[in-house]
Amino acid sequence: MEKKKYNKIVLAYSGGLDTSVLIPWLKENYGAEIIAVSGNVGQGTELDGLEEKALKTGASKLYIEDLTDEFVNDYVIPTMQAGATYEQYLLGTSFARPIIAKRIVEIAKKEGADAICHGCTGKGNDQVRFELAIQAFAPEIDIIAPWRFWELNSREKEIAYAEAHNIPLKINKETNYSKDKNLWHLSHEGLDLEDPANEAPINKPGFLEMSVSPEQAPDVPTNVTIHFEKGVPTSVDGVEMTPTQIIEKLNEVGGANGCGILDIVENRLVGMKSRGVYETPGGTVLYKAHEKLEEITLDKETQHYKQSLALKFADLVYNGQWYTPLRKAMTAFVTSTQETVTGDVTLKLYKGNIIPVSVTSPYSLYSAGMATFDEDDCYDQSDSAGFIHLFGLPLKVRALKAKEVEDFPGVE
Amino acid sequence: MEKKKYNKIVLAYSGGLDTSVLIPWLKENYGAEIIAVSGNVGQGTELDGLEEKALKTGASKLYIEDLTDEFVNDYVIPTMQAGATYEQYLLGTSFARPIIAKRIVEIAKKEGADAICHGCTGKGNDQVRFELAIQAFAPEIDIIAPWRFWELNSREKEIAYAEAHNIPLKINKETNYSKDKNLWHLSHEGLDLEDPANEAPINKPGFLEMSVSPEQAPDVPTNVTIHFEKGVPTSVDGVEMTPTQIIEKLNEVGGANGCGILDIVENRLVGMKSRGVYETPGGTVLYKAHEKLEEITLDKETQHYKQSLALKFADLVYNGQWYTPLRKAMTAFVTSTQETVTGDVTLKLYKGNIIPVSVTSPYSLYSAGMATFDEDDCYDQSDSAGFIHLFGLPLKVRALKAKEVEDFPGVE
Amino acid sequence: MEKKKYNKIVLAYSGGLDTSVLIPWLKENYGAEIIAVSGNVGQGTELDGLEEKALKTGASKLYIEDLTDEFVNDYVIPTMQAGATYEQYLLGTSFARPIIAKRIVEIAKKEGADAICHGCTGKGNDQVRFELAIQAFAPEIDIIAPWRFWELNSREKEIAYAEAHNIPLKINKETNYSKDKNLWHLSHEGLDLEDPANEAPINKPGFLEMSVSPEQAPDVPTNVTIHFEKGVPTSVDGVEMTPTQIIEKLNEVGGANGCGILDIVENRLVGMKSRGVYETPGGTVLYKAHEKLEEITLDKETQHYKQSLALKFADLVYNGQWYTPLRKAMTAFVTSTQETVTGDVTLKLYKGNIIPVSVTSPYSLYSAGMATFDEDDCYDQSDSAGFIHLFGLPLKVRALKAKEVEDFPGVE
Amino acid sequence: MEKKKYNKIVLAYSGGLDTSVLIPWLKENYGAEIIAVSGNVGQGTELDGLEEKALKTGASKLYIEDLTDEFVNDYVIPTMQAGATYEQYLLGTSFARPIIAKRIVEIAKKEGADAICHGCTGKGNDQVRFELAIQAFAPEIDIIAPWRFWELNSREKEIAYAEAHNIPLKINKETNYSKDKNLWHLSHEGLDLEDPANEAPINKPGFLEMSVSPEQAPDVPTNVTIHFEKGVPTSVDGVEMTPTQIIEKLNEVGGANGCGILDIVENRLVGMKSRGVYETPGGTVLYKAHEKLEEITLDKETQHYKQSLALKFADLVYNGQWYTPLRKAMTAFVTSTQETVTGDVTLKLYKGNIIPVSVTSPYSLYSAGMATFDEDDCYDQSDSAGFIHLFGLPLKVRALKAKEVEDFPGVE
Repeated sequence: MEKKKYNKIVLAYSGGLDTSVLIPWLKENYGAEIIAVSGNVGQGTELDGLEEKALKTGASKLYIEDLTDEFVNDYVIPTMQAGATYEQYLLGTSFARPIIAKRIVEIAKKEGADAICHGCTGKGNDQVRFELAIQAFAPEIDIIAPWRFWELNSREKEIAYAEAHNIPLKINKETNYSKDKNLWHLSHEGLDLEDPANEAPINKPGFLEMSVSPEQAPDVPTNVTIHFEKGVPTSVDGVEMTPTQIIEKLNEVGGANGCGILDIVENRLVGMKSRGVYETPGGTVLYKAHEKLEEITLDKETQHYKQSLALKFADLVYNGQWYTPLRKAMTAFVTSTQETVTGDVTLKLYKGNIIPVSVTSPYSLYSAGMATFDEDDCYDQSDSAGFIHLFGLPLKVRALKAKEVEDFPGVE
Repeated sequence: MEKKKYNKIVLAYSGGLDTSVLIPWLKENYGAEIIAVSGNVGQGTELDGLEEKALKTGASKLYIEDLTDEFVNDYVIPTMQAGATYEQYLLGTSFARPIIAKRIVEIAKKEGADAICHGCTGKGNDQVRFELAIQAFAPEIDIIAPWRFWELNSREKEIAYAEAHNIPLKINKETNYSKDKNLWHLSHEGLDLEDPANEAPINKPGFLEMSVSPEQAPDVPTNVTIHFEKGVPTSVDGVEMTPTQIIEKLNEVGGANGCGILDIVENRLVGMKSRGVYETPGGTVLYKAHEKLEEITLDKETQHYKQSLALKFADLVYNGQWYTPLRKAMTAFVTSTQETVTGDVTLKLYKGNIIPVSVTSPYSLYSAGMATFDEDDCYDQSDSAGFIHLFGLPLKVRALKAKEVEDFPGVE
Repeated sequence: MEKKKYNKIVLAYSGGLDTSVLIPWLKENYGAEIIAVSGNVGQGTELDGLEEKALKTGASKLYIEDLTDEFVNDYVIPTMQAGATYEQYLLGTSFARPIIAKRIVEIAKKEGADAICHGCTGKGNDQVRFELAIQAFAPEIDIIAPWRFWELNSREKEIAYAEAHNIPLKINKETNYSKDKNLWHLSHEGLDLEDPANEAPINKPGFLEMSVSPEQAPDVPTNVTIHFEKGVPTSVDGVEMTPTQIIEKLNEVGGANGCGILDIVENRLVGMKSRGVYETPGGTVLYKAHEKLEEITLDKETQHYKQSLALKFADLVYNGQWYTPLRKAMTAFVTSTQETVTGDVTLKLYKGNIIPVSVTSPYSLYSAGMATFDEDDCYDQSDSAGFIHLFGLPLKVRALKAKEVEDFPGVE
Repeated sequence: MEKKKYNKIVLAYSGGLDTSVLIPWLKENYGAEIIAVSGNVGQGTELDGLEEKALKTGASKLYIEDLTDEFVNDYVIPTMQAGATYEQYLLGTSFARPIIAKRIVEIAKKEGADAICHGCTGKGNDQVRFELAIQAFAPEIDIIAPWRFWELNSREKEIAYAEAHNIPLKINKETNYSKDKNLWHLSHEGLDLEDPANEAPINKPGFLEMSVSPEQAPDVPTNVTIHFEKGVPTSVDGVEMTPTQIIEKLNEVGGANGCGILDIVENRLVGMKSRGVYETPGGTVLYKAHEKLEEITLDKETQHYKQSLALKFADLVYNGQWYTPLRKAMTAFVTSTQETVTGDVTLKLYKGNIIPVSVTSPYSLYSAGMATFDEDDCYDQSDSAGFIHLFGLPLKVRALKAKEVEDFPGVE
């Protein structure tokens, strides 16, 4: 395939082998200057030494963008407030892609680049998430996705190419799972996980990174208390923190107690099923705390409708449709529901269990007196007869009609 | 209140204090013969000595109806196949009421009774579930619900009345939680649980009955393998069993490993929130196994739609709307989805955790080759470019339009 | 029944027979001063002479509250933007009740009243709508609903009582339909309409009031152009008007052309079906215009999700749940979707038909070039092969699996 | 592009220019024998002379498959029972594609063909519908879609090619709309319709084919009575007919009275909006009749849930996902709801209006006595007080709580 020429290409760069080999390859094939961009969404040490590496490999510049707080405040928290999970998955990779793509577009515009390149393969969801975000902000820019078409399509060729171009081969793919890490989670795919008949090696040393397995966790539980204001976590165990700090703190304590490990076969947007093991220690604790607080502060109708909205919200996030009018409108809905989600939740973390200990809120709709056997001022038990008569009226009418008509279908 | 006279009243009878006092009271107030009916849905020893007790208290007859297999096959399994949970609650009490009410109606018709009496209070869901089922099958029969209006509305009066009528007072309500038990679950309400700020005493000896707490569970995990045929469990660890036997077996092993304890504040149908602790050891294991099998045997569209249908299905079950055209139509939907839900699921039970070990099915839609990095015959990675272009087209069109129009709302 | 005494009762007063007889009856039975309140939501001439009538009948004061603009801006328009219809019904009575009840509560508080009385029967929806709104704003106030329990429960007794108390009997109920009128609509119930086997007499002179029937409408069509800004109508045929004036104008032109007549059997909240004929001439035209504008300004995902949200929104409005957190959150959703719903819609009104003539918007997402057969810059037809391959991949995987397995269920 | 060689290609053939030119082109490019297949789904005279034409153009065989009854019974009626419309569109083309594709696969298998070719462009929905069905039944067969990639991509080139190959040019595309016709409907796209600012020329002679416009329809209305058994239409005006005959009859009478013309901008599956004018005279009448019958025979919960299910059902049909487990499960749901949908519906057709005249059913759930003002045996008006108290309890609890707490959010 004859390739178009570009002046400047902005590359989404992680420092791993798959994006490192792209630098010389893009230069050779498109004749372009390469601007590498790494978005820091809390992946930690993965960013050390990145600049040197990028420049050595041929990039003319590396941007390391600290997006952590924006990631947490504008993407993670709104999704947590929605209670959105995709087939139970807490969307860790899903909402990291749009924010990185958005920043890459900003840099591409500033740099006057004429193309954006990413290192996603043609089989995953990330290509969609990256490209949808790019299209939303820069519909005119070209997108290059070499892993969908290029000639280095085997491990051997890739390694040979890397060696020929002096790219360090720290990672040995054959013996490593495919991983994605950020502040919120770490995902594991590939190798023996590819067969759902195989148990995930969560007890094997070195497999888990953010957490230990339930079996490895201490025998003594740890309690943790989270305070929320209007659905936003504001303190842990009485210490005020930013949401980012709270997630860090909960990662620590949740991970130490074996919380938040998920092993599922999920349905990718691009049509196939895949198996993943996810560590989301702090996120899982936070979701549970928020859910417990909503139990006492939201009315039934809001809670139930929100449950079904969360299913669609999760689809949008998973599918990379963050920058859409529908996601935005759903967030307006969710934000409105959060105005009374204020209070304290204490959870006991014990060997993978997250056990509710205490939930309180100044805006609690729970009324002990009303639920109990005893009399109270607000509830007259004789009301329930009337309630049942009308609630059951359609059934009664049908049953009465059925007595008048022979063989009324569906009525015994 | 002047009371109508009846010839024969059929009473839903548990043998507890609340239904025992109803026998003399109904006779005194309505001048009727009392036929007591107890439905066995697996509550176990609670049924011992019941006949003697009922007759002694003044009933002229006691029916003990063994409904366990019908309960499991026609109510529990279809609900489990739907994946229905009401605010996470596994509906243990909810689907037990309709089957008992249905049998009571059958007996009332056989006996020529002119009224049915139940011992539910005016604050709970069970009154609704009982009465809706009665209305569906016998819209013409009178229903008496003394706990909604009668004069024995304090614990003291009830006890005094019981003593005056020689009714044994085995149960001391003041120090006991309100419980409901059957094969599927055991619920706990009342006392200190009434304040969501109080931790449920799951580690306190004697509180839990079907299970131990995660902390009390053994340090060694137990694996269990369940086989399903078209969504129905047919064997455990290779031993063929009826669904009832499977639930018994899973209760044993799940309960021993601290699985299936749920502590929630839920929204009752009659308008208030209440707090309950539920033990559903076998049920929770069974739901998880079934869910894991669906992960590999259902396609995405079916799985996702089923998730939202399950929310409504759970509402119907919780609300006592079992005998409605909608519940029936939903079951037709669910049954259709189960035709490929055949296979084996192995789960590891460990201190409250239910960890997937292995999932296999002859009808698995999971294709390892397709999900991986490597090439395969069925998936051409270049297809994804086209997919993304069309999937993202609405976003791109909007972004392009926004470039032509000043201040296009919602586009940066 | 012994009745409680009150000092001051605020009465929701329409001037019709059913609320007129309540004034002397309330005074006699509760010994209270009666403050009558009529809310003007555009019912027009029904309000003439009302004050004289109320005072003559025994009220100490009559408030006539002009709520029309608030009704239109805060209730009608947000519901129209949601596209909400309840079983096709445009909710005319439904959203009029909450605003009136809210104002009545305000007056009750100002007047220091200790009870509120309404004239709704026990079989309709309006009692629910009134009382839910009252409970939301004054949970402590008593509500009196005489039509649910009183002794004047036949037409004869009511008329005798009215004559004995010098209440004018302008309306002869026996020969009149039950009607409810406001700016938005007029409903008809009762008499021969009660049997769905009877044709509604829409061609009978005097039946319809806001409109003529399609058969009676002129042979020449009328075009009308409505401009919207962010989902709010702001002009008709180029003349700027308030939303209230726009509805008046559209009532005129829509009614003259036989538009907006609906004849349905609907499901009341209180459990039974009822038959109603509704005239909503301007409203029906406005809904259609708004819908046509959304067709070109909303993206598919937003449009489709909004369709399903509208079903629940309509339930809430119909059920009187206007002042709930869920309705409020849904309005936040809808408002967010309206930011691009700006443009012009021309409709042809012809003998009951509302035919689209022209739709334009500066924010249109419609791109003529893209939809046509011919080439364009933005759409590469070869993309669709990739799209189809991935969109259809689950089907293909299933079909391929089915070839490997004998008797794969559901695959021929 | 180098093309693969095939022995035998089965071509979906309509006889129009776009599929006619494919015959010589496929032979030249793939060296294959061409088997043409036309599916008769009621498009009428379009099929005359087709065999001669196909053979003359180079096909070795033409199959004309009469699929009309299967189309109506297995595709149209189940969709009508679901009440499914896609953005109001009655899905005429959508469900015709899967049945034709299914038969083409059968013929391809019988003939031992190694590829299937269709004449859909890369911008429409039909390519998806065809190919999904082919993948479902023959995942291994190659699909050729020349209009997505070929060199005859302008009208001029196509005509030149046709003339060079002696293909008759009956149709002059430049002055004709793009149309799709079958028993159920006729669609119009293209030319001046491409701009939603242009009025559809429905009054222009020759535009409409199955119907006249409302303005052209007679001044005298026509009544029509349809009988249904379990949701299937079985007679019109007392004359028993097959569903196919009923649609023919209703097309005649509905079309003569200007019924069933729809003019919308819709969202195609492949990402863009398009404008279409649809004639569905009989179908629109049938949908309305069925809907009226459901109004009195379905209970509220079923009706409402079915409304939301219909939205997804329509998506599946529109998107070509007919042969999916989800569509099948949804049909199981719908079928279950139809068991009481038996009765008679009379509609008045008048200049585009479809006005209900009478609805009756032996299984009607409508009870006149219950809805009216007067007393009845089944409904005790005092029940509604209890109903309202519990239905409104969440609102009341919230309002009471708000009185205890300062600045309770969301409560005035």
